[in-house]
Amino acid sequence: MAKTIPISLDVMGGDSGAEVVIPGAEIALVRHPDIRFQLFGNEKVVKPLLDKFPRVRDASTFQHCDIAIAMDTKPSQALRQGRWRSSMWRSIEAVKTGDAAVAVSAGNTGALMAMSKFCLRTMANIERPAIAAIWPTSRGESVVLDVGATIGADAQQLIDFAILGGAMARALFGIERPTIGLLNIGVEEVKGLEEVRTAGRLLRETPLRSIDYAGFVEGDDLGKGTVDVVVTEGFAGNIALKTAEGTAKQIGGYLRSAMSRTFMSRIGYLFAKNAFDLLKAKMDPRKVNGGVFLGLNGIVIKSHGGTDAEGYAAAIDLAYDMVRNELTHKIAQDLVHYHRGRFGETATTSTGDL
Amino acid sequence: MAKTIPISLDVMGGDSGAEVVIPGAEIALVRHPDIRFQLFGNEKVVKPLLDKFPRVRDASTFQHCDIAIAMDTKPSQALRQGRWRSSMWRSIEAVKTGDAAVAVSAGNTGALMAMSKFCLRTMANIERPAIAAIWPTSRGESVVLDVGATIGADAQQLIDFAILGGAMARALFGIERPTIGLLNIGVEEVKGLEEVRTAGRLLRETPLRSIDYAGFVEGDDLGKGTVDVVVTEGFAGNIALKTAEGTAKQIGGYLRSAMSRTFMSRIGYLFAKNAFDLLKAKMDPRKVNGGVFLGLNGIVIKSHGGTDAEGYAAAIDLAYDMVRNELTHKIAQDLVHYHRGRFGETATTSTGDL
Repeated sequence: MAKTIPISLDVMGGDSGAEVVIPGAEIALVRHPDIRFQLFGNEKVVKPLLDKFPRVRDASTFQHCDIAIAMDTKPSQALRQGRWRSSMWRSIEAVKTGDAAVAVSAGNTGALMAMSKFCLRTMANIERPAIAAIWPTSRGESVVLDVGATIGADAQQLIDFAILGGAMARALFGIERPTIGLLNIGVEEVKGLEEVRTAGRLLRETPLRSIDYAGFVEGDDLGKGTVDVVVTEGFAGNIALKTAEGTAKQIGGYLRSAMSRTFMSRIGYLFAKNAFDLLKAKMDPRKVNGGVFLGLNGIVIKSHGGTDAEGYAAAIDLAYDMVRNELTHKIAQDLVHYHRGRFGETATTSTGDL
Repeated sequence: MAKTIPISLDVMGGDSGAEVVIPGAEIALVRHPDIRFQLFGNEKVVKPLLDKFPRVRDASTFQHCDIAIAMDTKPSQALRQGRWRSSMWRSIEAVKTGDAAVAVSAGNTGALMAMSKFCLRTMANIERPAIAAIWPTSRGESVVLDVGATIGADAQQLIDFAILGGAMARALFGIERPTIGLLNIGVEEVKGLEEVRTAGRLLRETPLRSIDYAGFVEGDDLGKGTVDVVVTEGFAGNIALKTAEGTAKQIGGYLRSAMSRTFMSRIGYLFAKNAFDLLKAKMDPRKVNGGVFLGLNGIVIKSHGGTDAEGYAAAIDLAYDMVRNELTHKIAQDLVHYHRGRFGETATTSTGDL
């Protein structure tokens, strides 16, 4: 029998908690019967649901947790209240102990990141974690990071993000040496943020085995899919992500109102219904649900808090793929290679100035 | 006879220069016969075109300029080569001398901003200019600034942008007290960039007559049209603008390919053609062409470099509206009011710490 994939779930996380998580787990389990879940949540809520979803029950272990972190809890508060005992913490801890290969939570991002950092710690030589999103493009998909873990990033942190994102693209898309772009305003070398320019210079001067640095990219390159990985700091990255989501919704609204406006357009809609359904599927934000926390000693996947079971299943699918394709191993490999290249195999000194 | 509106045009600016500018001027002139153009450009190119567009010729004065600033000229280079003598400079200078009420150029943004700053200077109490874009939203239109004049902004500069953008919204939308949001990641007061939080606190503590501060907004609020004016620094603003443009193009591409995919969908397209045409018109980037340089002693409008005559005419329309609705006057009013409110009517000291 093939090796199973152990995934821990924060069953209480998200706007609807267990009502979405357990049905979502069922959907993912049908697609990947080799998943084994570790469920953390309140037994009063979870147990009755497991009786309704025996497939999930049979593929899971369940552990009761007194505390559920609310969606509006501040990170510091969440750590105070929920460390050791909340379903969120315990699902992350399962990754630390090795019981799970990856954790999934639809809980609040700030709390989840704070707990993940506290529990898993950042990897050696990585100063800050990043949240990576999968961005649907005209050419397929790209990895975009950081979309909101932290604000601001110096040149070295941007290079770290490039390595982390590169490893994720290798794991996700199976590309040997993904192309990487630094998000900037203007593509000329003299333009934009100084940290971005410095990172660009360093990436150009010291080519890496694991990534193919392609220069600066701009906001409109995100949708085009100009590169496999787009690297930016978390403020601009988060704004770009939400702006794209908002624009997609806005145009979807235009389209709906245009198609229902006249008798003729409604007939047209009926004829083209299959095409519209395809388009709708293509633009479905649930399909690319899941932000990947990178740079920690273990992988945590953040599902959108307001998603439904289908969207939650997509986040589990992503978690599954990341484990099956050995994301952690790839990141570790790439980091070792990068730091060897910079300091020679025997170097043990600090990372020095950049 | 009603007062005419004098507008200066950098005829050589843009990817196609006069070939787009003169026909664009013709289109705008039909809509606004009270415009009088001051054209600056190379006579060899412009004169033959004016013979083809006698309506523009009859409503214009023309001045020959030896130098045209190329689209890839760096700002410093443009200033060295083109000060005093280029069509770009002369069109801006016409605003300074009062010969024109506003200048329009499709030339390169960096050069145009550098020359505008050098020639017109920033307004009293304004440290940095901003570029304001008109953003189509589900509710109508919003003003978004800065979309790329400078990188970074402290709290005071963000407040300046709020006042400038508020005046533009008053002029453009005829709203007495436009709502203003600060672009941030997360809407809670404790979240996001420190400069943005400080600006938010100050705007809340000292309500302004000319604007109605509505708190933080996120990337997806841009498309929703949650507020009339969205304020941000130029790096994030530029990335948001280009991300939205890219996403709109990407979805347009999806839609076209979906509609041409099958026989049925093509029939559906024919039935709904009017609806699609409306949608296309709604998403037409040419309709909202024109970035407004704010915070200088005079208004300069930047048209997209790659636009066609229709798009260029939209930039002239915008210039016309800004003058007709007395943007400069409104900005001056709002700034006086703001600084009076802060320091009392008799205060003449420096602006102090924030």
